[in-house]
Amino acid sequence: MAARQREISVSEFFTKNRHLLGFDSPTKALLTTIKEAVDNSLDACEEAGILPDLEVTIQALAENRYRIEVADNGPGIVKAQVPKIFGKLLYGSKFHRLRQSRGQQGIGISAAGMYGQLTTGKPIVIESRTNRRQAAHRYELVIDTLRNQPVIKRDLEVDWEAPHGTRVAIELEGTYKKGRHGVETYLRQTALANPHVEIRFQGPAEGEVLAFQRASSTLPPEALEIQPHPHGVEVGLLLRMLKESKARRLSSFFQTEFSRVGPTLAQRIVEGAELQPKSSPKRVTAEAAERLIASIRQARIPAPPTNCLSPIGEERLLASLQEQIAADFYAAVSRSPAVYRGNPFQVEIGLAYGGDLTSDDLVSLYRFANRVPLLYQQGGCALFKSVLSTNWKAYGLQQSRGALPSGPLILMAHVASVWVPFTSESKEAVAGYDEIVREMKLALQEVGRQLARHVRRTERRRDADRKRAYIEKYIPHIGIALQDILGLSEKQEAEIVETLTDTLARSRKM
Amino acid sequence: MAARQREISVSEFFTKNRHLLGFDSPTKALLTTIKEAVDNSLDACEEAGILPDLEVTIQALAENRYRIEVADNGPGIVKAQVPKIFGKLLYGSKFHRLRQSRGQQGIGISAAGMYGQLTTGKPIVIESRTNRRQAAHRYELVIDTLRNQPVIKRDLEVDWEAPHGTRVAIELEGTYKKGRHGVETYLRQTALANPHVEIRFQGPAEGEVLAFQRASSTLPPEALEIQPHPHGVEVGLLLRMLKESKARRLSSFFQTEFSRVGPTLAQRIVEGAELQPKSSPKRVTAEAAERLIASIRQARIPAPPTNCLSPIGEERLLASLQEQIAADFYAAVSRSPAVYRGNPFQVEIGLAYGGDLTSDDLVSLYRFANRVPLLYQQGGCALFKSVLSTNWKAYGLQQSRGALPSGPLILMAHVASVWVPFTSESKEAVAGYDEIVREMKLALQEVGRQLARHVRRTERRRDADRKRAYIEKYIPHIGIALQDILGLSEKQEAEIVETLTDTLARSRKM
Repeated sequence: MAARQREISVSEFFTKNRHLLGFDSPTKALLTTIKEAVDNSLDACEEAGILPDLEVTIQALAENRYRIEVADNGPGIVKAQVPKIFGKLLYGSKFHRLRQSRGQQGIGISAAGMYGQLTTGKPIVIESRTNRRQAAHRYELVIDTLRNQPVIKRDLEVDWEAPHGTRVAIELEGTYKKGRHGVETYLRQTALANPHVEIRFQGPAEGEVLAFQRASSTLPPEALEIQPHPHGVEVGLLLRMLKESKARRLSSFFQTEFSRVGPTLAQRIVEGAELQPKSSPKRVTAEAAERLIASIRQARIPAPPTNCLSPIGEERLLASLQEQIAADFYAAVSRSPAVYRGNPFQVEIGLAYGGDLTSDDLVSLYRFANRVPLLYQQGGCALFKSVLSTNWKAYGLQQSRGALPSGPLILMAHVASVWVPFTSESKEAVAGYDEIVREMKLALQEVGRQLARHVRRTERRRDADRKRAYIEKYIPHIGIALQDILGLSEKQEAEIVETLTDTLARSRKM
Repeated sequence: MAARQREISVSEFFTKNRHLLGFDSPTKALLTTIKEAVDNSLDACEEAGILPDLEVTIQALAENRYRIEVADNGPGIVKAQVPKIFGKLLYGSKFHRLRQSRGQQGIGISAAGMYGQLTTGKPIVIESRTNRRQAAHRYELVIDTLRNQPVIKRDLEVDWEAPHGTRVAIELEGTYKKGRHGVETYLRQTALANPHVEIRFQGPAEGEVLAFQRASSTLPPEALEIQPHPHGVEVGLLLRMLKESKARRLSSFFQTEFSRVGPTLAQRIVEGAELQPKSSPKRVTAEAAERLIASIRQARIPAPPTNCLSPIGEERLLASLQEQIAADFYAAVSRSPAVYRGNPFQVEIGLAYGGDLTSDDLVSLYRFANRVPLLYQQGGCALFKSVLSTNWKAYGLQQSRGALPSGPLILMAHVASVWVPFTSESKEAVAGYDEIVREMKLALQEVGRQLARHVRRTERRRDADRKRAYIEKYIPHIGIALQDILGLSEKQEAEIVETLTDTLARSRKM
């Protein structure tokens, strides 16, 4: 048995486990490929302060075979980085830093390339230009999956009109479908959560063109990078940080490596662990590190800075919903940032009710993480479960046990974080960390109460309307009857009708 | 930006993404650690043909700190393999072979050790002995997470009475909880799906001892290793196999590297791609590989061998359910093996209904993959979704839209495969491959029909009982009334009562 034990390369692992990356069906594979390319483009544009302008093209080559192309007006990618970014899993700049971005794992786009290669044998093609003085390059590359290394097949200079940008093309086996899990739905929801983005889409059918124009020409506030927060650190990680730090003293170690730690707090943490502020970080033993962790946990440390987040915001959420969905009532809640495992995060809920929405169906839930629509794995997602476990009957909706509520409602749930805890590498569902579920529920209750007020108001108004109709219908007859019985004049009858109408109208207001 | 791009080691990746491995909460972390150790022990015992005898011990060290120990009577592990098996992610013997086993990724136990190290700074401790002539060894090791490499801290010879076996101990931060997601539930369900296993459990509280005795002293049929099936191969993989194969001719390549391909079929595949059976596998181009794939897809190839699977079986399923659950009615269905992406798999459903089970609650679903209970992520699991989308009203149960049915029912769903497609590395939910969902639904319909017959029979019997009571209650009165009105004798009255009773009893049977 021993002889058969051997190493498994990351790319081998994900080739066999491709569903972990979102490539379990031909429909999903096509969508995931577009999603990964669009995520990268949007991140690159925003980091460079450029208003994103994207072109997404799907070309049908044969039955179940497509060529996906995503082009952006981003900053472009320097030659040295292209092979690894597109041809190596677990490589990138977003994993090791703490700030909100769509990509975070260093897997997505190379996985899409690997899937294309696996199903068609074709390389991934990248064209990129970084500035006017440099020519654009075109690279064709494949992944050596046994070693998880990129292999450049061709590299040549090409013409490109724009001064900078990147274009990625992947040929793959896939299925193009419309509907709830389709590319169009994905792009529409992307526009909903990213009003500053402009996307032109060309589908595989002739004339299948869509344009999502930007509703706002200002970029969202830039998310800044932060240091880790002490409350998110455990013994093992602390030991590693101590070993790797350039700080010479324990007190300066805490000040330079963490956010929210000043000189006083650093000294308190170190002394709380019965260590010397002047001693060397490298010499801290495992036992001493445990004492440091205990000391950190007892210390009051301000919450981490939240300028690492870039939420959509209540106003933009409302505006987006009003722009895209015809309804009677809208509400939006953007919670204050909170923290899970030391990571700042923020929950936002938007809601559209009534109007053209159908009331017999279960409510539609649009889920987003760091502004990216999540179209699959709803059942396994903490956002979904929070909606499920909220008591919607209290807010005027019907709800069966263990099911989503029903009614004319669209819910939009967004979680923004420096590190969204996805349930798999395909980033389709958010893991159920208690802190995230708690914030979700509070946000849902807040919009729920607003909804309940609207539903009650609507019902009261409907009742009132019914009464008014009743009054208007019967009072004249009563007047005529009284006129007959009591022999009243026309004027007296009119007076009585008016009095009755007035009385009933007043009683209605009570 | 370019300067910040860098490689991410697998262990760094999973440290940050620990929820992917099942370590998102202290409760789950404790359970996952036990699960990984038990999986490994059971696999090792069964592979060596040993009836598994396990001891699982949880020792409370402080609040939220536990020492988990799992000891087995398995074959033991040779010294050279210990560090990598326990101290390196993505390493093992089960990933590269095709046969049913609990472990398949080469991640589990080293991830548990890494989590322990991360939260407590303590090494993972392994004791193992392979035979009488060799002393037992005790190793303490940690993982260098930046490089994903094991580091042995200590290695010494120790005394051990048994001739062979392995004992793993991990100290970790965790929470010990009872209930639906607790260790006890997990062990109970493990016993349900593995009647040949004996487990002694010692919980953290004094006297908290449980013993699950084996109900069967025969091992399940051994699962054999198979070659990949041609229908599961795509262009990319085929190209790699062609390059790596030792076969000198294309025709022998197909015969030696795949299951179910004989000389005639091999020749047909090669010629269908307009290639020569004698040409060298290494010289096949990407274009030619595409033609080979097209030719494979057109060829009729028998389904892969299914001796790589080791299902529980209908009889054992029924026996297990009857042994452990007090109910009125039991049913079990073991479907024939089917194939997804070239991988054989098999679906089994067991069902217990009525009796002591409560009828107001939603039904309880016990999910299993390769005989391992799945306690988390029910919502994201294809087994759950198949149950949800089955029309249970047709089988006599209540069911709200979008919810599980309710009624006095326990459902046991098992999928066995050479490669179970889990939705994440934590192996808690099965991905929704169409073929698996289809088999699940067919199995559910089969047990559903059996259930419906039972429910209808029960209802008919209840109706009949009600009628009998009715008859018994009113007929004598009718007799007396008729006697009064018609002036009948006692005997005549008795005759009429008898005739009426008889007539009604007969009409009931129609």
